Amino acid sequence: MGRPMAQNLIQAGHQLAFFTRRPEVAAEFAAAGARAAESPAAAARDAEFIVTIVTADAEVREVILGPGGVAEGAAGAVLIDMSTIGPWTAREIGAELAARDIAMLDAPVSGGPWGAAAGTLSIMVGGDPEVFGRARNVLEAMGDPAKIFHVGPLGAGQTVKLINQMLGGAIMALVGEAFVLGRAAGVDLDQLADVVAVSSGNSAVFEARGKKFVLADNYQPGFKTALMRKDVGLALELGRQLAVPLPVAAAAFQQYAAALRLGHAEDDFAAVAKVYEQTTGLKLATKST
Amino acid sequence: MGRPMAQNLIQAGHQLAFFTRRPEVAAEFAAAGARAAESPAAAARDAEFIVTIVTADAEVREVILGPGGVAEGAAGAVLIDMSTIGPWTAREIGAELAARDIAMLDAPVSGGPWGAAAGTLSIMVGGDPEVFGRARNVLEAMGDPAKIFHVGPLGAGQTVKLINQMLGGAIMALVGEAFVLGRAAGVDLDQLADVVAVSSGNSAVFEARGKKFVLADNYQPGFKTALMRKDVGLALELGRQLAVPLPVAAAAFQQYAAALRLGHAEDDFAAVAKVYEQTTGLKLATKST
Amino acid sequence: MGRPMAQNLIQAGHQLAFFTRRPEVAAEFAAAGARAAESPAAAARDAEFIVTIVTADAEVREVILGPGGVAEGAAGAVLIDMSTIGPWTAREIGAELAARDIAMLDAPVSGGPWGAAAGTLSIMVGGDPEVFGRARNVLEAMGDPAKIFHVGPLGAGQTVKLINQMLGGAIMALVGEAFVLGRAAGVDLDQLADVVAVSSGNSAVFEARGKKFVLADNYQPGFKTALMRKDVGLALELGRQLAVPLPVAAAAFQQYAAALRLGHAEDDFAAVAKVYEQTTGLKLATKST
Amino acid sequence: MGRPMAQNLIQAGHQLAFFTRRPEVAAEFAAAGARAAESPAAAARDAEFIVTIVTADAEVREVILGPGGVAEGAAGAVLIDMSTIGPWTAREIGAELAARDIAMLDAPVSGGPWGAAAGTLSIMVGGDPEVFGRARNVLEAMGDPAKIFHVGPLGAGQTVKLINQMLGGAIMALVGEAFVLGRAAGVDLDQLADVVAVSSGNSAVFEARGKKFVLADNYQPGFKTALMRKDVGLALELGRQLAVPLPVAAAAFQQYAAALRLGHAEDDFAAVAKVYEQTTGLKLATKST
Repeated sequence: MGRPMAQNLIQAGHQLAFFTRRPEVAAEFAAAGARAAESPAAAARDAEFIVTIVTADAEVREVILGPGGVAEGAAGAVLIDMSTIGPWTAREIGAELAARDIAMLDAPVSGGPWGAAAGTLSIMVGGDPEVFGRARNVLEAMGDPAKIFHVGPLGAGQTVKLINQMLGGAIMALVGEAFVLGRAAGVDLDQLADVVAVSSGNSAVFEARGKKFVLADNYQPGFKTALMRKDVGLALELGRQLAVPLPVAAAAFQQYAAALRLGHAEDDFAAVAKVYEQTTGLKLATKST
Repeated sequence: MGRPMAQNLIQAGHQLAFFTRRPEVAAEFAAAGARAAESPAAAARDAEFIVTIVTADAEVREVILGPGGVAEGAAGAVLIDMSTIGPWTAREIGAELAARDIAMLDAPVSGGPWGAAAGTLSIMVGGDPEVFGRARNVLEAMGDPAKIFHVGPLGAGQTVKLINQMLGGAIMALVGEAFVLGRAAGVDLDQLADVVAVSSGNSAVFEARGKKFVLADNYQPGFKTALMRKDVGLALELGRQLAVPLPVAAAAFQQYAAALRLGHAEDDFAAVAKVYEQTTGLKLATKST
Repeated sequence: MGRPMAQNLIQAGHQLAFFTRRPEVAAEFAAAGARAAESPAAAARDAEFIVTIVTADAEVREVILGPGGVAEGAAGAVLIDMSTIGPWTAREIGAELAARDIAMLDAPVSGGPWGAAAGTLSIMVGGDPEVFGRARNVLEAMGDPAKIFHVGPLGAGQTVKLINQMLGGAIMALVGEAFVLGRAAGVDLDQLADVVAVSSGNSAVFEARGKKFVLADNYQPGFKTALMRKDVGLALELGRQLAVPLPVAAAAFQQYAAALRLGHAEDDFAAVAKVYEQTTGLKLATKST
Repeated sequence: MGRPMAQNLIQAGHQLAFFTRRPEVAAEFAAAGARAAESPAAAARDAEFIVTIVTADAEVREVILGPGGVAEGAAGAVLIDMSTIGPWTAREIGAELAARDIAMLDAPVSGGPWGAAAGTLSIMVGGDPEVFGRARNVLEAMGDPAKIFHVGPLGAGQTVKLINQMLGGAIMALVGEAFVLGRAAGVDLDQLADVVAVSSGNSAVFEARGKKFVLADNYQPGFKTALMRKDVGLALELGRQLAVPLPVAAAAFQQYAAALRLGHAEDDFAAVAKVYEQTTGLKLATKST
């Protein structure tokens, strides 16, 4: 995700210093005119805005607050963390940054690699409204201006993102249930997909991943099963912290554990449908691949 | 549902005889030029096509095969049952009708009272393809021609309908979980709704019933909780018969039992969200009503 | 089950006429001095008490109310149905029998083939208390007198039985979860079993089926997976009819569908633990077999 | 829990130094001849064995590794942590203690306040077998020697404890389902309890908390709902970390969120049955209180 987002920042005319552990990405950015830095701190030095996007809570902490982290070089700057993490982690980091005179926005995205490449991501932003106003220009280089939402104080961006993921991840499991029930009952799954697409059972996930992934037996990500499981897991952890019963999402989350165990961590999260194949002996694909 | 569907048949120029237990509907149909009959059998006599639409499996059996049922008067005709019932019931009735030289299509609909009034229902049809061809003209008077699907042999229409309902009903419970988690976490639910509407967590149910029902505290049906529970229950019964695990849909179904117990049988099925209010003490509406 | 129960009736001095479709059982009963009959009706003729025990609702109906069924020969008698079926079916049959002057008790049992052989079954009886009093002597030939319970009107025996099965069946799935979590975490499963056996997580199912079935990789029934699934399914159907949310039992029930699909219908219901092996790739047995 | 456990240590002849924040407990211990210390570190100084028992992972960390924590005063000693926490936390703390030459055992207990008072707790111990051997004498002052289990390396005690709690907590939710289904169906709940107690649906939780808590409308702890929820939550977190699907336990856990929201945090965990009352409008108590 970070790669096309950085390219869009460069193309929008921003002066970019960057830190990455992947040499091929470094070469590409350098070729585009960005300055390589030897550490997150070095990349952050003298920057007005700092953008971080990594995978998990511990990594976000490390790249921001760890040795050589951006916090060392960023007094006076605005840090925009676009990773998907727990809102509690965002708030904890924000408190530590505030003590060093660094403002923080949490700004997770939705839209996948395709949206990142096209610069049409939706962005859910939590943090001080005034800081959000200042950062808007930077955010608009990466996302669709009509889909950049300021949703509340620091952490609110993560909360909204996790809720969206909880919906998408759980609906995907339901889509697996719909197809496996249809297969067992002997109906034509392509026709089933056509009917649902124009009926009340339709969803963004069904449209994007029903025919094109499950029925095509195509699990090239897209958005990986391991990441969707992480996100739905964070939503459930939020539910645990707040004592909110989420029985349907919790049932769906368990299917992702099986998906991981069955070897689909790196496949698109549509592979949660494979769990239903495994527990029924039925095949869902309508096309050979 | 049956009322506007019958009006559309009349307006399409079909000659209609009807049986209904509701006098005000009878008067309306009579005024439109249809002939009242004293029993289903009398309405069916000499008809080319017979349309039935009632609520539950037992009622469908009664109106078709019971004393004075349409089967008594319909040799040579095509019976189109547009109720939502178990595919097993459709097949059992179809077998009894075949012995009396009556062809049967199962043709449940999606689209609600609004779609019925506008004649834009989607219709999922099971049965003999040749019979479907003959009945097409009748179906097109009630549904959108682009959304009339022949999905397989007798019972397949019901199977597809139930799977669609399972998706819609379970997604509605998930929408309740999304909102209650957002409320507990302190985010603005209207903004949450705006974000989801353009993100991967979106669904037909979220669009139709998120802001307009749950956040507006409006539970005027629409499609009643008792009926959605019946339909999701039939989908789970199909899963039981075929030994298909449906853990996410099963979790959602349990919430509808609570919705009924809490007095929402006659409310729109969006009222499953009320169960989450009851078990958390939180309120979801963003507007006073 | 029926075979040892009948032997116990004979040994208690009751004069027995019987109908069975299995010739080897017929020979055994005849050798013990019972009279073979050519139909249920013939077996029932002139009997004071009639005992039926078959597998499913439809079979109970058939053997009692079908052609040649016991109802034809049993005016004035007491019918004791010891099958496990829906309480609604018991009540429907009871109403038809009452019209023919046949009293009915529903009297399902718990204790398995071992309890049947030993005559120590527990029996849960629904029906008229006076009829129960008359039948007590017959019931005590098959069950432990201290475990014969009159629990309410006709159907109540089935309700109590189904609730007991719901507990046992769901707990067995939980036992599978306990062992698979222990295995994944690397603890010794035999020691885990020893600890649970003396702690608050213990249960009748854990004691009878933890070490002896799951850890011994022994799935000889016992009580078959297909039958446990049927019983838990009936409990959930009762919950559906009464609009009672049963989310934990419903989650467990879905695992039995997978157990059937994975080929364990005829294995002991402890085989629901096999579903967890299948979805994790872990093995639970601690002994090779 | 810690109070009677300390009393049993004193009565077994151990010389006890203690730190507690509760003055009334301090007075009681002092009266029994134990030495009050001003910090965990001071209590630990020169001790051969150190016993800690607090509520949550963060508190265990604080009391051991925080400022004035036992780690400051305990080089050469054996720390026995009897709290119930995540096995990952036990292992992390153990690694830090090892670097300071402090051996650690994780030794959570089962048996409740009653078992603690009677000195009949069961204790599940993880850690080095040689260290366990040395500590055995101390453990036997608090638990039943026949129920003190060494179950594996550091963390294994917690794993086994959490699995036991997962079983007990989930079974309690099932007991709620059993009673509410029985109530809705109209059977006598006391008789239902008598039948289950001698049948395959029985469990330690049912015996301890069925009649005596739920049917008696008595929710005096016992073991609090908030603590059971914490423990089952830790088991599910272990499942998340290890990618083990636990659908039945996950469904049960969601009911504890509702129990908390409905105000039962400080009630005995049998109060999860109250959630079923709330979602059905039925009452489960058979005795007025």
